[in-house]
Amino acid sequence: MDTRERLTKAFKHFPGIGPRQARRFVYFLLSRGPKFSGEFAKQITKLHDSVTRCEITHQYFAPEDPNQNRSPIACDEDRDWSRLLIVETDMDLEAIEKTGEYDGMYYVLGSQGSLTDDDLEKTLHLEELQSVISKHYGDGLEEAIIATSVTPEGERIRDTVTRFLADTAKNLGFTISTLGRGLSTGTELEYIDDNTMRHALDGRN
Amino acid sequence: MDTRERLTKAFKHFPGIGPRQARRFVYFLLSRGPKFSGEFAKQITKLHDSVTRCEITHQYFAPEDPNQNRSPIACDEDRDWSRLLIVETDMDLEAIEKTGEYDGMYYVLGSQGSLTDDDLEKTLHLEELQSVISKHYGDGLEEAIIATSVTPEGERIRDTVTRFLADTAKNLGFTISTLGRGLSTGTELEYIDDNTMRHALDGRN
Repeated sequence: MDTRERLTKAFKHFPGIGPRQARRFVYFLLSRGPKFSGEFAKQITKLHDSVTRCEITHQYFAPEDPNQNRSPIACDEDRDWSRLLIVETDMDLEAIEKTGEYDGMYYVLGSQGSLTDDDLEKTLHLEELQSVISKHYGDGLEEAIIATSVTPEGERIRDTVTRFLADTAKNLGFTISTLGRGLSTGTELEYIDDNTMRHALDGRN
Repeated sequence: MDTRERLTKAFKHFPGIGPRQARRFVYFLLSRGPKFSGEFAKQITKLHDSVTRCEITHQYFAPEDPNQNRSPIACDEDRDWSRLLIVETDMDLEAIEKTGEYDGMYYVLGSQGSLTDDDLEKTLHLEELQSVISKHYGDGLEEAIIATSVTPEGERIRDTVTRFLADTAKNLGFTISTLGRGLSTGTELEYIDDNTMRHALDGRN
Protein backbone atom coordinates (compact mmCIF):
# COMPACT_ATOMS: atom_id res chain seq x y z
CA MET A 1 0.00 0.00 0.00
CA ASP A 2 1.58 3.31 -0.99
CA THR A 3 1.36 6.54 1.00
CA ARG A 4 -1.51 7.80 -1.16
CA GLU A 5 -3.64 4.79 -0.23
CA ARG A 6 -2.70 4.94 3.44
CA LEU A 7 -3.66 8.61 3.57
CA THR A 8 -6.89 8.03 1.63
CA LYS A 9 -7.77 5.37 4.22
CA ALA A 10 -7.09 7.80 7.09
CA PHE A 11 -9.18 10.58 5.51
CA LYS A 12 -12.09 8.14 5.09
CA HIS A 13 -12.40 8.05 8.88
CA PHE A 14 -13.13 11.79 9.01
CA PRO A 15 -16.78 12.67 9.64
CA GLY A 16 -18.78 12.91 6.41
CA ILE A 17 -15.91 11.91 4.10
CA GLY A 18 -16.37 9.13 1.54
CA PRO A 19 -13.71 7.35 -0.52
CA ARG A 20 -13.80 9.80 -3.45
CA GLN A 21 -13.40 12.92 -1.35
CA ALA A 22 -10.69 11.20 0.71
CA ARG A 23 -8.74 10.55 -2.49
CA ARG A 24 -9.35 14.13 -3.64
CA PHE A 25 -7.84 15.36 -0.35
CA VAL A 26 -4.64 13.39 -1.04
CA TYR A 27 -4.28 14.97 -4.50
CA PHE A 28 -5.05 18.33 -2.98
CA LEU A 29 -2.14 17.91 -0.55
CA LEU A 30 0.11 16.84 -3.43
CA SER A 31 -0.88 19.90 -5.42
CA ARG A 32 -0.21 22.24 -2.48
CA GLY A 33 3.35 20.98 -2.19
CA PRO A 34 5.60 19.92 0.70
CA LYS A 35 5.61 23.29 2.47
CA PHE A 36 1.85 23.34 3.08
CA SER A 37 1.81 19.64 4.02
CA GLY A 38 4.77 20.01 6.35
CA GLU A 39 3.18 22.89 8.26
CA PHE A 40 -0.14 21.01 8.30
CA ALA A 41 1.47 17.82 9.70
CA LYS A 42 3.27 19.88 12.34
CA GLN A 43 0.02 21.42 13.57
CA ILE A 44 -1.61 17.97 13.74
CA THR A 45 1.26 16.65 15.83
CA LYS A 46 1.06 19.67 18.14
CA LEU A 47 -2.72 19.49 18.53
CA HIS A 48 -2.90 16.99 21.37
CA ASP A 49 -0.17 18.68 23.39
CA SER A 50 -1.67 22.14 23.17
CA VAL A 51 -5.31 21.21 23.82
CA THR A 52 -6.76 19.45 26.87
CA ARG A 53 -10.17 18.67 28.33
CA CYS A 54 -11.62 20.95 31.01
CA GLU A 55 -12.16 19.06 34.28
CA ILE A 56 -15.53 20.78 34.78
CA THR A 57 -17.14 21.18 31.35
CA HIS A 58 -15.23 18.34 29.70
CA GLN A 59 -14.78 20.59 26.63
CA TYR A 60 -11.48 20.88 24.77
CA PHE A 61 -9.56 24.08 25.43
CA ALA A 62 -6.04 25.43 24.97
CA PRO A 63 -4.61 26.17 28.44
CA GLU A 64 -2.36 29.19 28.72
CA ASP A 65 -0.11 27.41 31.18
CA PRO A 66 0.21 23.62 31.51
CA ASN A 67 -1.27 23.50 35.03
CA GLN A 68 -4.56 25.07 34.00
CA ASN A 69 -7.34 22.44 34.21
CA ARG A 70 -10.34 24.67 33.65
CA SER A 71 -11.59 26.24 30.44
CA PRO A 72 -12.47 29.96 30.28
CA ILE A 73 -16.17 29.09 30.76
CA ALA A 74 -15.44 27.14 33.96
CA CYS A 75 -13.30 30.05 35.23
CA ASP A 76 -15.88 32.73 34.42
CA GLU A 77 -17.37 33.97 37.71
CA ASP A 78 -20.44 35.41 36.03
CA ARG A 79 -21.75 32.02 34.87
CA ASP A 80 -24.72 30.50 36.66
CA TRP A 81 -23.66 27.20 38.27
CA SER A 82 -27.22 26.29 39.22
CA ARG A 83 -27.93 25.22 35.64
CA LEU A 84 -26.00 22.59 33.74
CA LEU A 85 -26.54 22.12 29.99
CA ILE A 86 -25.44 18.69 28.80
CA VAL A 87 -24.50 18.58 25.08
CA GLU A 88 -23.20 15.89 22.76
CA THR A 89 -20.12 17.60 21.31
CA ASP A 90 -17.82 20.61 21.47
CA MET A 91 -19.39 21.82 18.21
CA ASP A 92 -22.79 21.96 19.97
CA LEU A 93 -21.33 23.92 22.89
CA GLU A 94 -19.71 26.43 20.53
CA ALA A 95 -22.94 26.84 18.55
CA ILE A 96 -24.98 27.47 21.71
CA GLU A 97 -22.40 29.93 23.09
CA LYS A 98 -22.60 31.83 19.82
CA THR A 99 -26.35 32.40 20.31
CA GLY A 100 -25.63 34.29 23.58
CA GLU A 101 -28.88 32.92 25.02
CA TYR A 102 -27.43 30.77 27.82
CA ASP A 103 -25.20 31.73 30.74
CA GLY A 104 -25.20 28.53 32.83
CA MET A 105 -22.58 25.79 32.84
CA TYR A 106 -21.95 23.01 30.32
CA TYR A 107 -20.93 19.41 30.16
CA VAL A 108 -19.74 17.89 26.85
CA LEU A 109 -20.50 14.17 26.62
CA GLY A 110 -18.22 13.19 23.75
CA SER A 111 -16.49 14.29 20.65
CA GLN A 112 -17.22 14.36 16.95
CA GLY A 113 -17.71 10.81 15.75
CA SER A 114 -17.25 9.20 19.17
CA LEU A 115 -20.91 8.87 20.17
CA THR A 116 -22.11 6.62 17.37
CA ASP A 117 -20.88 3.37 18.87
CA ASP A 118 -23.29 0.68 19.97
CA ASP A 119 -22.23 0.58 23.59
CA LEU A 120 -23.65 4.01 24.34
CA GLU A 121 -23.49 3.81 28.17
CA LYS A 122 -19.76 3.21 27.92
CA THR A 123 -18.90 5.75 25.20
CA LEU A 124 -20.84 8.46 27.03
CA HIS A 125 -18.57 8.13 30.11
CA LEU A 126 -21.54 8.80 32.36
CA GLU A 127 -19.69 7.92 35.57
CA GLU A 128 -17.47 10.88 34.79
CA LEU A 129 -20.48 13.17 34.39
CA GLN A 130 -21.90 11.89 37.68
CA SER A 131 -18.63 12.44 39.53
CA VAL A 132 -18.25 15.96 38.10
CA ILE A 133 -21.76 16.79 39.31
CA SER A 134 -21.21 15.35 42.80
CA LYS A 135 -17.80 16.91 43.22
CA HIS A 136 -18.23 20.36 41.69
CA TYR A 137 -21.94 21.21 41.84
CA GLY A 138 -23.37 19.47 44.92
CA ASP A 139 -26.46 21.08 46.46
CA GLY A 140 -26.15 24.19 44.33
CA LEU A 141 -27.33 22.49 41.14
CA GLU A 142 -31.00 23.14 40.43
CA GLU A 143 -31.45 21.90 36.87
CA ALA A 144 -29.70 19.67 34.36
CA ILE A 145 -30.86 20.48 30.83
CA ILE A 146 -30.18 17.67 28.40
CA ALA A 147 -29.63 19.35 25.03
CA THR A 148 -29.18 16.70 22.36
CA SER A 149 -30.07 16.92 18.68
CA VAL A 150 -33.60 16.00 17.64
CA THR A 151 -32.43 12.94 15.69
CA PRO A 152 -32.86 9.23 16.50
CA GLU A 153 -29.24 9.17 17.76
CA GLY A 154 -29.73 12.34 19.82
CA GLU A 155 -32.95 11.05 21.38
CA ARG A 156 -31.23 7.79 22.27
CA ILE A 157 -28.45 9.72 24.00
CA ARG A 158 -30.99 11.91 25.81
CA ASP A 159 -32.90 8.87 27.10
CA THR A 160 -29.70 7.14 28.24
CA VAL A 161 -28.44 10.21 30.11
CA THR A 162 -31.84 10.90 31.67
CA ARG A 163 -32.11 7.33 32.94
CA PHE A 164 -28.57 7.37 34.25
CA LEU A 165 -28.96 10.67 36.13
CA ALA A 166 -32.36 9.88 37.71
CA ASP A 167 -30.98 8.68 41.08
CA THR A 168 -28.33 11.40 41.32
CA ALA A 169 -31.01 14.01 40.58
CA LYS A 170 -33.22 12.66 43.37
CA ASN A 171 -30.32 12.51 45.85
CA LEU A 172 -28.95 15.96 45.12
CA GLY A 173 -32.36 17.54 44.53
CA PHE A 174 -32.05 18.90 40.98
CA THR A 175 -34.51 18.53 38.11
CA ILE A 176 -33.80 17.09 34.67
CA SER A 177 -35.24 18.87 31.65
CA THR A 178 -35.04 18.78 27.84
CA LEU A 179 -34.98 21.74 25.45
CA GLY A 180 -38.49 22.75 24.35
CA ARG A 181 -39.84 21.25 21.15
CA GLY A 182 -41.95 22.98 18.53
CA LEU A 183 -41.58 25.22 15.50
CA SER A 184 -38.08 26.52 14.76
CA THR A 185 -37.79 30.09 13.48
CA GLY A 186 -38.14 29.97 9.72
CA THR A 187 -40.24 26.79 9.67
CA GLU A 188 -42.79 26.80 6.86
CA LEU A 189 -45.92 24.90 7.84
CA GLU A 190 -46.19 23.53 4.32
CA TYR A 191 -43.16 21.30 5.00
CA ILE A 192 -43.87 20.33 8.61
CA ASP A 193 -43.13 16.75 9.70
CA ASP A 194 -45.43 14.80 12.04
CA ASN A 195 -43.05 14.83 15.04
CA THR A 196 -42.65 18.60 14.96
CA MET A 197 -46.41 19.04 14.52
CA ARG A 198 -47.14 16.83 17.53
CA HIS A 199 -44.60 18.70 19.72
CA ALA A 200 -45.92 22.08 18.54
CA LEU A 201 -49.49 21.08 19.45
CA ASP A 202 -48.43 19.64 22.82
CA GLY A 203 -46.47 22.77 23.71
CA ARG A 204 -49.01 25.35 22.48
CA ASN A 205 -49.58 28.42 24.63
CA MET B 1 -4.28 31.73 17.42
CA ASP B 2 -4.24 28.29 19.04
CA THR B 3 -3.51 25.02 17.24
CA ARG B 4 -7.22 24.29 16.82
CA GLU B 5 -7.72 27.51 14.90
CA ARG B 6 -4.59 27.04 12.81
CA LEU B 7 -5.71 23.53 11.84
CA THR B 8 -9.26 24.65 11.15
CA LYS B 9 -7.82 27.24 8.80
CA ALA B 10 -5.73 24.61 6.99
CA PHE B 11 -8.68 22.22 6.60
CA LYS B 12 -10.76 25.06 5.10
CA HIS B 13 -8.41 24.98 2.08
CA PHE B 14 -9.38 21.37 1.30
CA PRO B 15 -11.74 20.98 -1.67
CA GLY B 16 -15.40 21.17 -0.63
CA ILE B 17 -14.70 21.90 3.05
CA GLY B 18 -16.40 24.83 4.77
CA PRO B 19 -15.61 26.36 8.19
CA ARG B 20 -17.98 24.11 10.16
CA GLN B 21 -16.69 20.85 8.73
CA ALA B 22 -13.10 22.07 9.11
CA ARG B 23 -13.76 22.62 12.82
CA ARG B 24 -15.46 19.22 13.06
CA PHE B 25 -12.30 17.62 11.59
CA VAL B 26 -10.18 19.17 14.35
CA TYR B 27 -12.46 17.76 17.06
CA PHE B 28 -12.46 14.45 15.24
CA LEU B 29 -8.65 14.34 15.44
CA LEU B 30 -8.78 15.25 19.13
CA SER B 31 -11.26 12.46 19.78
CA ARG B 32 -9.11 9.90 17.94
CA GLY B 33 -6.15 10.64 20.17
CA PRO B 34 -2.43 11.24 19.61
CA LYS B 35 -1.68 7.81 18.12
CA PHE B 36 -4.01 8.23 15.14
CA SER B 37 -2.92 11.86 14.63
CA GLY B 38 0.77 10.96 14.87
CA GLU B 39 0.50 8.23 12.24
CA PHE B 40 -1.64 10.54 10.07
CA ALA B 41 0.89 13.40 10.30
CA LYS B 42 3.71 10.97 9.46
CA GLN B 43 1.96 9.84 6.27
CA ILE B 44 1.35 13.44 5.23
CA THR B 45 5.02 14.26 5.69
CA LYS B 46 6.03 11.18 3.68
CA LEU B 47 3.56 11.85 0.88
CA HIS B 48 5.66 14.20 -1.21
CA ASP B 49 8.78 12.05 -0.96
CA SER B 50 7.06 8.84 -2.00
CA VAL B 51 4.99 10.25 -4.85
CA THR B 52 6.21 12.04 -7.97
CA ARG B 53 4.82 13.20 -11.31
CA CYS B 54 5.27 11.00 -14.40
CA GLU B 55 7.33 12.78 -17.07
CA ILE B 56 4.97 11.52 -19.81
CA THR B 57 1.44 11.50 -18.38
CA HIS B 58 2.10 14.15 -15.72
CA GLN B 59 0.06 12.02 -13.28
CA TYR B 60 1.16 11.36 -9.69
CA PHE B 61 2.57 7.89 -9.06
CA ALA B 62 4.65 6.10 -6.43
CA PRO B 63 7.93 5.01 -8.07
CA GLU B 64 9.35 1.69 -6.93
CA ASP B 65 12.88 3.05 -7.13
CA PRO B 66 13.84 6.73 -6.95
CA ASN B 67 15.14 6.87 -10.53
CA GLN B 68 11.86 5.81 -12.08
CA ASN B 69 10.33 8.77 -13.96
CA ARG B 70 7.46 7.02 -15.69
CA SER B 71 4.18 5.79 -14.25
CA PRO B 72 2.94 2.24 -14.94
CA ILE B 73 0.70 3.58 -17.73
CA ALA B 74 3.63 5.25 -19.50
CA CYS B 75 5.65 2.01 -19.14
CA ASP B 76 2.86 -0.24 -20.42
CA GLU B 77 3.84 -1.40 -23.95
CA ASP B 78 0.28 -2.35 -24.84
CA ARG B 79 -0.99 1.23 -24.68
CA ASP B 80 -1.76 3.06 -27.90
CA TRP B 81 0.54 6.10 -28.20
CA SER B 82 -1.29 7.44 -31.25
CA ARG B 83 -4.07 8.77 -29.03
CA LEU B 84 -3.60 11.21 -26.17
CA LEU B 85 -6.44 11.94 -23.75
CA ILE B 86 -5.99 15.25 -21.94
CA VAL B 87 -7.78 15.40 -18.57
CA GLU B 88 -8.04 18.02 -15.83
CA THR B 89 -7.00 15.97 -12.78
CA ASP B 90 -5.62 12.67 -11.51
CA MET B 91 -9.12 11.83 -10.23
CA ASP B 92 -10.42 12.09 -13.80
CA LEU B 93 -7.67 9.80 -15.09
CA GLU B 94 -8.42 7.20 -12.42
CA ALA B 95 -12.16 7.33 -13.14
CA ILE B 96 -11.60 6.85 -16.89
CA GLU B 97 -9.12 3.99 -16.30
CA LYS B 98 -11.74 2.29 -14.11
CA THR B 99 -14.20 2.22 -17.03
CA GLY B 100 -11.73 0.11 -19.05
CA GLU B 101 -12.93 1.81 -22.24
CA TYR B 102 -9.72 3.60 -23.21
CA ASP B 103 -6.24 2.22 -23.90
CA GLY B 104 -4.41 5.26 -25.29
CA MET B 105 -2.13 7.63 -23.38
CA TYR B 106 -3.00 10.42 -20.96
CA TYR B 107 -1.89 13.84 -19.95
CA VAL B 108 -3.03 15.35 -16.62
CA LEU B 109 -3.24 19.14 -16.76
CA GLY B 110 -3.38 19.94 -13.06
CA SER B 111 -4.37 18.77 -9.65
CA GLN B 112 -7.41 18.99 -7.42
CA GLY B 113 -8.08 22.61 -6.67
CA SER B 114 -5.24 23.97 -8.79
CA LEU B 115 -7.17 24.76 -11.97
CA THR B 116 -9.63 27.27 -10.59
CA ASP B 117 -7.32 30.25 -10.70
CA ASP B 118 -7.99 33.17 -12.94
CA ASP B 119 -4.78 32.99 -14.93
CA LEU B 120 -5.74 29.74 -16.64
CA GLU B 121 -3.02 29.76 -19.32
CA LYS B 122 -0.40 29.86 -16.60
CA THR B 123 -1.93 27.34 -14.17
CA LEU B 124 -2.46 24.82 -16.97
CA HIS B 125 1.31 24.69 -17.68
CA LEU B 126 0.57 24.34 -21.37
CA GLU B 127 4.19 24.79 -22.46
CA GLU B 128 4.89 21.59 -20.54
CA LEU B 129 2.14 19.75 -22.42
CA GLN B 130 3.48 21.06 -25.70
CA SER B 131 7.04 19.97 -24.94
CA VAL B 132 5.89 16.50 -23.81
CA ILE B 133 4.02 16.09 -27.11
CA SER B 134 6.96 17.28 -29.24
CA LYS B 135 9.51 15.25 -27.33
CA HIS B 136 7.71 11.97 -26.70
CA TYR B 137 4.99 11.64 -29.33
CA GLY B 138 6.27 13.39 -32.47
CA ASP B 139 4.84 12.18 -35.77
CA GLY B 140 3.22 9.14 -34.16
CA LEU B 141 0.45 11.14 -32.53
CA GLU B 142 -2.81 11.03 -34.51
CA GLU B 143 -5.34 12.49 -32.11
CA ALA B 144 -5.46 14.59 -28.96
CA ILE B 145 -8.80 14.12 -27.19
CA ILE B 146 -9.56 16.93 -24.77
CA ALA B 147 -11.66 15.35 -22.03
CA THR B 148 -12.77 18.05 -19.60
CA SER B 149 -15.92 18.12 -17.49
CA VAL B 150 -19.07 19.57 -19.05
CA THR B 151 -19.13 22.53 -16.65
CA PRO B 152 -18.41 26.21 -17.33
CA GLU B 153 -14.92 25.73 -15.82
CA GLY B 154 -14.30 22.56 -17.84
CA GLU B 155 -15.42 24.20 -21.09
CA ARG B 156 -13.16 27.15 -20.40
CA ILE B 157 -10.21 24.78 -19.92
CA ARG B 158 -11.14 22.87 -23.08
CA ASP B 159 -11.25 26.07 -25.15
CA THR B 160 -7.92 27.29 -23.74
CA VAL B 161 -6.14 23.99 -24.45
CA THR B 162 -7.65 23.69 -27.94
CA ARG B 163 -6.55 27.22 -28.84
CA PHE B 164 -3.09 26.62 -27.43
CA LEU B 165 -2.54 23.31 -29.26
CA ALA B 166 -3.84 24.47 -32.66
CA ASP B 167 -0.42 25.32 -34.15
CA THR B 168 1.32 22.25 -32.71
CA ALA B 169 -1.46 20.06 -34.11
CA LYS B 170 -1.03 21.58 -37.57
CA ASN B 171 2.77 21.19 -37.48
CA LEU B 172 2.80 17.62 -36.18
CA GLY B 173 -0.29 16.55 -38.12
CA PHE B 174 -2.64 15.36 -35.38
CA THR B 175 -6.31 16.20 -34.89
CA ILE B 176 -7.90 17.69 -31.80
CA SER B 177 -11.22 16.27 -30.64
CA THR B 178 -13.62 16.52 -27.70
CA LEU B 179 -15.58 13.69 -26.04
CA GLY B 180 -19.00 13.21 -27.67
CA ARG B 181 -21.95 15.04 -26.14
CA GLY B 182 -25.47 13.74 -25.74
CA LEU B 183 -27.55 11.62 -23.38
CA SER B 184 -25.69 9.89 -20.53
CA THR B 185 -26.79 6.39 -19.59
CA GLY B 186 -29.59 6.73 -17.05
CA THR B 187 -30.72 10.15 -18.28
CA GLU B 188 -34.47 10.65 -17.95
CA LEU B 189 -35.79 12.91 -20.69
CA GLU B 190 -38.23 14.48 -18.22
CA TYR B 191 -35.27 16.22 -16.52
CA ILE B 192 -33.21 17.11 -19.60
CA ASP B 193 -31.44 20.49 -19.70
CA ASP B 194 -31.25 22.59 -22.85
CA ASN B 195 -27.52 22.10 -23.47
CA THR B 196 -27.78 18.30 -23.34
CA MET B 197 -30.86 18.41 -25.60
CA ARG B 198 -29.06 20.56 -28.16
CA HIS B 199 -26.00 18.26 -28.17
CA ALA B 200 -28.20 15.15 -28.39
CA LEU B 201 -30.02 16.59 -31.39
CA ASP B 202 -26.78 17.68 -33.10
CA GLY B 203 -25.21 14.25 -32.59
CA ARG B 204 -28.21 12.12 -33.54
CA ASN B 205 -27.55 9.03 -35.64
